[in-house]
Amino acid sequence: MSDSNQGAAASTQPRKPFGRILLTGAAGNLGQQLRGALSAWADIVRVSDVAPLGDAAAHEELAVVDLADRDAVHALLEGVDAVVHLGGISVEAPFEDLLEANIRGLYNLYSSAQKHGVRRIVYASSNHVVGFHPTTSVVDIDAPLRPDSLYGVSKCFGESLSRYYFDRFGLETVCLRIGSSFEQPKNPRMLVTYLSYRDLIELVRCSLFTNRVGHAIVYGVSDNRAKWIDNAKAAFLGFHPQDSSIEFEHLFPAGAPTTDLDDPTQRYQGGAFVLAGPMEPKR
Amino acid sequence: MSDSNQGAAASTQPRKPFGRILLTGAAGNLGQQLRGALSAWADIVRVSDVAPLGDAAAHEELAVVDLADRDAVHALLEGVDAVVHLGGISVEAPFEDLLEANIRGLYNLYSSAQKHGVRRIVYASSNHVVGFHPTTSVVDIDAPLRPDSLYGVSKCFGESLSRYYFDRFGLETVCLRIGSSFEQPKNPRMLVTYLSYRDLIELVRCSLFTNRVGHAIVYGVSDNRAKWIDNAKAAFLGFHPQDSSIEFEHLFPAGAPTTDLDDPTQRYQGGAFVLAGPMEPKR
Amino acid sequence: MSDSNQGAAASTQPRKPFGRILLTGAAGNLGQQLRGALSAWADIVRVSDVAPLGDAAAHEELAVVDLADRDAVHALLEGVDAVVHLGGISVEAPFEDLLEANIRGLYNLYSSAQKHGVRRIVYASSNHVVGFHPTTSVVDIDAPLRPDSLYGVSKCFGESLSRYYFDRFGLETVCLRIGSSFEQPKNPRMLVTYLSYRDLIELVRCSLFTNRVGHAIVYGVSDNRAKWIDNAKAAFLGFHPQDSSIEFEHLFPAGAPTTDLDDPTQRYQGGAFVLAGPMEPKR
Amino acid sequence: MSDSNQGAAASTQPRKPFGRILLTGAAGNLGQQLRGALSAWADIVRVSDVAPLGDAAAHEELAVVDLADRDAVHALLEGVDAVVHLGGISVEAPFEDLLEANIRGLYNLYSSAQKHGVRRIVYASSNHVVGFHPTTSVVDIDAPLRPDSLYGVSKCFGESLSRYYFDRFGLETVCLRIGSSFEQPKNPRMLVTYLSYRDLIELVRCSLFTNRVGHAIVYGVSDNRAKWIDNAKAAFLGFHPQDSSIEFEHLFPAGAPTTDLDDPTQRYQGGAFVLAGPMEPKR
Amino acid sequence: MSDSNQGAAASTQPRKPFGRILLTGAAGNLGQQLRGALSAWADIVRVSDVAPLGDAAAHEELAVVDLADRDAVHALLEGVDAVVHLGGISVEAPFEDLLEANIRGLYNLYSSAQKHGVRRIVYASSNHVVGFHPTTSVVDIDAPLRPDSLYGVSKCFGESLSRYYFDRFGLETVCLRIGSSFEQPKNPRMLVTYLSYRDLIELVRCSLFTNRVGHAIVYGVSDNRAKWIDNAKAAFLGFHPQDSSIEFEHLFPAGAPTTDLDDPTQRYQGGAFVLAGPMEPKR
Amino acid sequence: MSDSNQGAAASTQPRKPFGRILLTGAAGNLGQQLRGALSAWADIVRVSDVAPLGDAAAHEELAVVDLADRDAVHALLEGVDAVVHLGGISVEAPFEDLLEANIRGLYNLYSSAQKHGVRRIVYASSNHVVGFHPTTSVVDIDAPLRPDSLYGVSKCFGESLSRYYFDRFGLETVCLRIGSSFEQPKNPRMLVTYLSYRDLIELVRCSLFTNRVGHAIVYGVSDNRAKWIDNAKAAFLGFHPQDSSIEFEHLFPAGAPTTDLDDPTQRYQGGAFVLAGPMEPKR
Repeated sequence: MSDSNQGAAASTQPRKPFGRILLTGAAGNLGQQLRGALSAWADIVRVSDVAPLGDAAAHEELAVVDLADRDAVHALLEGVDAVVHLGGISVEAPFEDLLEANIRGLYNLYSSAQKHGVRRIVYASSNHVVGFHPTTSVVDIDAPLRPDSLYGVSKCFGESLSRYYFDRFGLETVCLRIGSSFEQPKNPRMLVTYLSYRDLIELVRCSLFTNRVGHAIVYGVSDNRAKWIDNAKAAFLGFHPQDSSIEFEHLFPAGAPTTDLDDPTQRYQGGAFVLAGPMEPKR
Repeated sequence: MSDSNQGAAASTQPRKPFGRILLTGAAGNLGQQLRGALSAWADIVRVSDVAPLGDAAAHEELAVVDLADRDAVHALLEGVDAVVHLGGISVEAPFEDLLEANIRGLYNLYSSAQKHGVRRIVYASSNHVVGFHPTTSVVDIDAPLRPDSLYGVSKCFGESLSRYYFDRFGLETVCLRIGSSFEQPKNPRMLVTYLSYRDLIELVRCSLFTNRVGHAIVYGVSDNRAKWIDNAKAAFLGFHPQDSSIEFEHLFPAGAPTTDLDDPTQRYQGGAFVLAGPMEPKR
Repeated sequence: MSDSNQGAAASTQPRKPFGRILLTGAAGNLGQQLRGALSAWADIVRVSDVAPLGDAAAHEELAVVDLADRDAVHALLEGVDAVVHLGGISVEAPFEDLLEANIRGLYNLYSSAQKHGVRRIVYASSNHVVGFHPTTSVVDIDAPLRPDSLYGVSKCFGESLSRYYFDRFGLETVCLRIGSSFEQPKNPRMLVTYLSYRDLIELVRCSLFTNRVGHAIVYGVSDNRAKWIDNAKAAFLGFHPQDSSIEFEHLFPAGAPTTDLDDPTQRYQGGAFVLAGPMEPKR
Repeated sequence: MSDSNQGAAASTQPRKPFGRILLTGAAGNLGQQLRGALSAWADIVRVSDVAPLGDAAAHEELAVVDLADRDAVHALLEGVDAVVHLGGISVEAPFEDLLEANIRGLYNLYSSAQKHGVRRIVYASSNHVVGFHPTTSVVDIDAPLRPDSLYGVSKCFGESLSRYYFDRFGLETVCLRIGSSFEQPKNPRMLVTYLSYRDLIELVRCSLFTNRVGHAIVYGVSDNRAKWIDNAKAAFLGFHPQDSSIEFEHLFPAGAPTTDLDDPTQRYQGGAFVLAGPMEPKR
Repeated sequence: MSDSNQGAAASTQPRKPFGRILLTGAAGNLGQQLRGALSAWADIVRVSDVAPLGDAAAHEELAVVDLADRDAVHALLEGVDAVVHLGGISVEAPFEDLLEANIRGLYNLYSSAQKHGVRRIVYASSNHVVGFHPTTSVVDIDAPLRPDSLYGVSKCFGESLSRYYFDRFGLETVCLRIGSSFEQPKNPRMLVTYLSYRDLIELVRCSLFTNRVGHAIVYGVSDNRAKWIDNAKAAFLGFHPQDSSIEFEHLFPAGAPTTDLDDPTQRYQGGAFVLAGPMEPKR
Repeated sequence: MSDSNQGAAASTQPRKPFGRILLTGAAGNLGQQLRGALSAWADIVRVSDVAPLGDAAAHEELAVVDLADRDAVHALLEGVDAVVHLGGISVEAPFEDLLEANIRGLYNLYSSAQKHGVRRIVYASSNHVVGFHPTTSVVDIDAPLRPDSLYGVSKCFGESLSRYYFDRFGLETVCLRIGSSFEQPKNPRMLVTYLSYRDLIELVRCSLFTNRVGHAIVYGVSDNRAKWIDNAKAAFLGFHPQDSSIEFEHLFPAGAPTTDLDDPTQRYQGGAFVLAGPMEPKR
C-alpha cells in the first residue's frame, strides 16, 4: 500500500470493532453513503475506487486502484479484516467492460482476500440476478437465477465465486441483492425496489456484525408496500428496514395498469434492464 | 346498455385513473361498501345487480341484470375497462341456483369481458375454496383446493375459469379469497377470518392498481391475531391490512376449548359451511 | 332402473369382488375398452351412455341415460357399488354443452351416488386440467391447475366437486388425468401423452381395488420415453404401465425442432387444445 | 390427591374458563412466572414439583411429586382439564437422570392424562431439538430434528410421544420450543433466542385457549432483531410476541465476528449445549 | 469380552473388508438371516442377543448380553468396527420393556460405540415411525414423524439419538425403516410393506459399504407394486431391491375395498400397530 | 468460414433433420465420440477445436478456432442451426485460462449464435457446478449451485449466461451436467458419476431433438447403482441411460469406508476437484 494516499496514521487507540475495513467503489453513489458509516466500526477505513476519492479523513487510507489490476488488488487487501465491495460496474455495459471490472476484478479481490486471510466480504450483488422473474411473483433467496442483463450475469458470477471461496476456504460473504438505492425512487418500479440509504447502511451493519454468516444472500429492499422479494430465510442477519417508499408514492400517482401486456419492462422485475443488453463494445 | 338506468351523463373531464369500472353484486353487503369507493377511481362506475340499486349518483350507470342472461351480460360489459365482480350467490345454496349464478353467470361474464377487451377482473372468490383444511393449519395461496360446500366448489370453478382466460387471452384476474367481511365478527370463528370493510376496499384498490397481476390469488383477511392464511406469495400486490379483529375480541370472551374434537365445524376452517350443504333444490 | 334394458338376471353366484359396477360413457372409445374388462371384476356391470350400447352381455344391465337428467341419473345409481365414470364430453365444446354434460351431469352423478351409498367413483379427468403448463416442465399431481380449454375447466370442476364429496361424505374418488388413449399415437405430441388401452385398464383396476384411495389424483400415461408428468405421489395406487409409445416412434420420425417458438400448441402440454376454445354455441 | 397439600377448597363459583389446570415444574424459573398467570384462567391451579412449592394460594392445590413415580403421577392428573408441563430437567444432564425425569416421567404424564381424559397438554419442549442447525440458517416448525444434547434428544422423545397420543387418542399438545427465557439475555447468543417472561405467558395463553391445536409445534422466542426460527406455519395459534431483546443489546456491544470458524458453539444454534454432553452419570 | 463364548480364534488372514462387525439381535428372525451374510464381509462377526445363539461358526464370537446392562454393552463394543443393530424389541410392548431394551439399551450402545471409536452403526428403525400417515399418501425420508405405537416412539428416539451422535461425534448411522421382513407377506397390507430377506441383506450391504453415509434414513421395502414410501433422497446408498411382493399377490386375492372407512388399521400405514398400544405393563 | 478447411462440399440431398450442426471441442475425448454420431443427424457437421482435427469426412467442415477470438467465433457460427458446445477447458485450471476459454469464449459463442439466429445450443456444463454438495445427499436440477473449483465457477457462469440468452432472445440451451464420461470408471467415485459414451450420445440426441427445451438442465450420468443426482424434473427430455457402472464394480472391490471423515475429497460430490483449485497462473 506504499503507493496509496494515506490520509492519516492509524489511530493509536484501536478500540473499534474492526481494525481495518476496505471499502471499494467508494467514489460511487452508494460508496459515498457508506464511507462515513464505516468509520464508526473500524479503526481504519481503506477507501478505494478507480475514480478520485477526495481528501482522506483522519482514519482513512485512500487507494486509487483498478480492480482488474491483479497486483494492485493484492496490495489493496493487505492488512484488511473485512471488505465492503461496491466496486465494479453497476449498470448494463459491454461485456468486455463487465469482464474486466466485475469478473476479473472480483476474482482478483477474492484471490487476494483469501491469501491475506480476510475473513468476510460484503458483496454488492444485485436484484438483477433474478430480474427475469415476473413482476407477478415473489422471489426468495433460493429462487432460481434469472439474470436480466450481462450485468446481472456478472453478478451471478460473483455469487458463485464467493460461494466457492466459502466452501473451499471458509471466507464468508454476504451477497446483498440491492434493489434501487437512491435518494428517492425515480420511477414507479422503484416504489417496489427502493432501498433507502439508511436501510442500506443498516444492511451493511448487519452483514458485518452478525457473528456467523457463512455464505448468505439477502435482498436489499426497504419496507415498501408492494414487494417482489422475501427475506424470510435470511432472518438470521437481523435486517429490519426502517424506511419505506410509501412516502414517495405521491410522486407517481397511481394510474390504471399499462396496456401492453407483453412489454417486458413491465412484465419482469428487472424493468428496463431486461432490454438494455447486450451492449456492443465501444470501439 | 340502452335499457339500463343511466344515472348521469359521463363526466366531461375523464381524468380519473379508470374510465369505466363495472361493479356487479352492487346491492349486496360488500357491494354497498365498494360502490362509493370506486367513484374515486373511475370516471364512470357501472353498478349492477339483480336486486334494486337505488338512485344513481352523478357518475354512475345502473343496470339490473341477471348474470345468467347471456345477452344482458354481454351488453353489461360494453365499454368497461375493469370489473369488480361481487355478483352471484355468496352462501351455500342448492346446486341449481349456484349453477346459474356462479357458474353460468361467471362464464357469461368472462366470455363477454374477453370479447369487449376488458383488461382485468377482480373476482370475489372465497376462503371456502379451502374450507376443508383444518383449523390447525395455515394455508398459503398454493394450498390444494378443499372446497367446503357446493358454494365453495362454484368458487373453485371461478378460479379455474379465470385462470384459463388469463392463460388463453391475457385477461388478468385477482381472485380475492374473502374471509368474513362484515361490520364486525359475528362469532368466535370470525375473529380469525374477519376482513374489515376498510381492508376490503384497500384490497380491491391494490387489485385494480397494481400494474401487472397476471392471475393472482390473495386472501382477504384483516391483521387478526390468529391466522389460517399466509399471503406471503402475493406480496407483489402490496396489500397490508390496517384493521384487526383484536378490537372485537371482547365480544367473544375466551373460554376453554370446545369438547367435541370431531365437530367438523370446529375442525375445519370453513366452520358451519362444512355441514351446510348439499342443499336440496327448492321446489 | 325398470326402464333400462336388462341384459340378464344377475348371476346366482355373486363371487366376483364387486357386486355391481356402473360404467358410464360406455359407448365411447374408452368405454368400449373397459366394458369387457369390468366383467371380470363385478357380478353385474351396468353400462350406460346417451348413445346406443348394442346388445347386453349376460352379466350386463344397459341404460341409455342423459347425465343432465337428474331423475334418470338417480335411478342409474341405485344398487351400485362403484362407478367408472367416462361419461360426458371429452373434447373441447361449446360451454353450454359442457355445462350440461360435464358440470350438471357430474353433480347429478355425485349427488345420486352419495344418496345411494356408493363407495367409490373412478372419474375420467384429463391432463387438460394442466394443459397450460409448458412442455419444458414436468407436473406432479400437486401442480397448480392450468386448464387449457373450457373442457379442461369442466374437468377442474369435477376434481373439486369430487374432493368435496370425499371431505364431506367419505365418497372416494380416483381422478384419472388421462393423456391420449387411442390404439396408437396420432401425432408427435401423443408420443409423450400416449396411454395404451391395456395400461388404461390396469389403471382402472388399481383405482377400483386399492383398499383405500381417499381422493386421489393420478396421471394416465404409459411408460413413454419423454414424460411431462410425475406420478410419484400416487405410488400407493400401484399403477405401473406396461406399454410405451416407443414402439410407435417410427411413425413420427424425429426432426429438428419446429421453428415458431411462440406457437402455443408447441409450447404448452395441452397441444392443440390450448387454441381450440372457447367455442361459440351451436345455434 | 388425598396426600397432597390442598391450599384451599375449590372456589364455589367455577366461572373461569378452565376448571383445573395442572402446572408441573412449578418451582422452577419459568414455573414461578406461570404460577400466577394461570390463576386467572382456572378455578383451581394444581401446582406440582419435586422441589418445595411454598404456600398455596387460595385457588391452589400443591403436590410434591416425582414424575418418575407412576402412581403419584396418575394421582396428580385426576380431575385435571389441562396441563402446562414444565416439569423435568431443562439442561444437559447424565442420561440416567434424563431417562427418569424426561422420558419415563413424560410417559407417566401422558399415560395418566389419557386415562383421566385430560384434553390438552402444553409441553415445554426446547429449541435444543434443532440446536445442531447452523446459526446461518432459519428453521421452521417442520425442520428436521437435530438435537444438540441428550437433553435435546429427550425433548425429541417428548415431541414424538405427544404426537402419538394425539394421533391415537386425540389428546392435544402444543410443543413449545422455548428459547432462552430469563429476566434478560445472559450472553450474545441469547439476543437471538431470548423469550421474555411476558411473551412466555402469552404463548401459554395462546396454547391453552386456541380452540383447536391438534399436535402443534411453535418456537418460543420474542420479537428479537435476528432470528433463527420461523413460526409462520403456527400462525393459527395467534402468538405475537410483544417484547424484544433489542432493549438488551447494549449489554453485549457488537464486536467483529469471532475468529474460530470451526467453534461449534458459534456455528450451531444450540450454542454451548452442543458441547455440553454427553455427561457421565454421577456415581 | 472374556465372559462371552468365543467360537473361534480370529482368522489369521484378516483380508475381508471389515475386521470385526457386531450383530445384535442375532437370535431373532432377521438376525438369523444376516448372521450368515455378515461372514462374507468381516473377519470376525460378533453375534449377540439375550436369547441363545447356538453354536459359533469359525469366524464368530458369541455374546449373550442384555442391552440394558451398561457394562456388558460397553464390553460388547470393544474392538468393533461397525455394528448392525437389530437388538431390542421389534413389536408393540409395555412401555417399561421398551424403555429398557430400546431406549436405555440404545443409549448404552451408542455411548459405548462412541467411546470405543466405532465408525458406523446400521440401525434397525422401522416404518412404524411414520405409521400414522394415511395409506393414501407416500412418505419420503423427510416426512414428519408419526409414530403409530410406543414401539414406534422408541424408534423415533433411536433416530434422534443417532442423529445426535453423528452431529456431535461423527459416528455414522444408517436408519433402516424396515417394513415387513418375513419369508412372505402374511396379510394384504404386507403386500405393500414386504421386504424380502435377500433385499434386507442387500440393504445392509449398501449401508455398510457406502463410503460416506453421514446420518442416513432409508426405507426397507422391496420393489412391490403399491408403495407408501419414496427412497429417492437416499439414492446415494445405491439400494435397489430385487424382489417384489407381486409373486405373493395370489395369496390375497383382490377384493372390493373394505367398507369401514374409519377403521384405523386400514386408514393408516401402520396397520394393526395403530391400535396395539399402549400396552399395560405385565405385573 | 473461408479460411477453414472444408472437408467436402455439402451434400446435395439435404434430407437429414438438421442442416448444419456445429461441434466445438471436437478434438477432445468427448468430441471424438460425438463427431461420428452427429453425422447421422445433420447434412453438414462443422467440427471445431483449437487442436488439430484430422481429416474431414465427406459431410464435415473443419475449423480450428480459438474461442476467445471474437471474430473467429462469429464466423464459426455462420449458417449453423444448432451447436453442441464441448469447447473450452474441462478441468481445473488457472483462472486466466478459464477466463479466456470458458467465460470470454462462451460469451463469444452465445453472442455470435444470437446474431446468426442459431436456435439451440447443447452446452457441456458439469456436475462440478454442484460439487460441494455432500456425497450423502442427492441433488436435483434445482439444487443450489455449489461449485467445487474455479472450473465449476466457470460452468456456473455458462449456465447463467445461457439462461439470459434464453430469457432475452429465446435461444434455447440444454445444460448437460456431465459426470465422468470415459471408457470406464477410473476410481471408486466414478462408479457413481460414470456416463458411458453411448449414454452421452443419447443425451445429446435427446437434447437436440426434443421439440421444445427452453433453458433446460439435466445431469449426464448412466444408470449406476448409487446416485447423487435426480433427473426427475428433466423427464420431458426423455433421457433414459442404457448403461451402468455395475459392470465395472469389480475393478474397485468394495472395502470398508475410508477412515478420515473430514477428507473433503470423500465428503463432497466433487471428489478431488474440491482441493484442486485455485491454481496459480503459469508464468
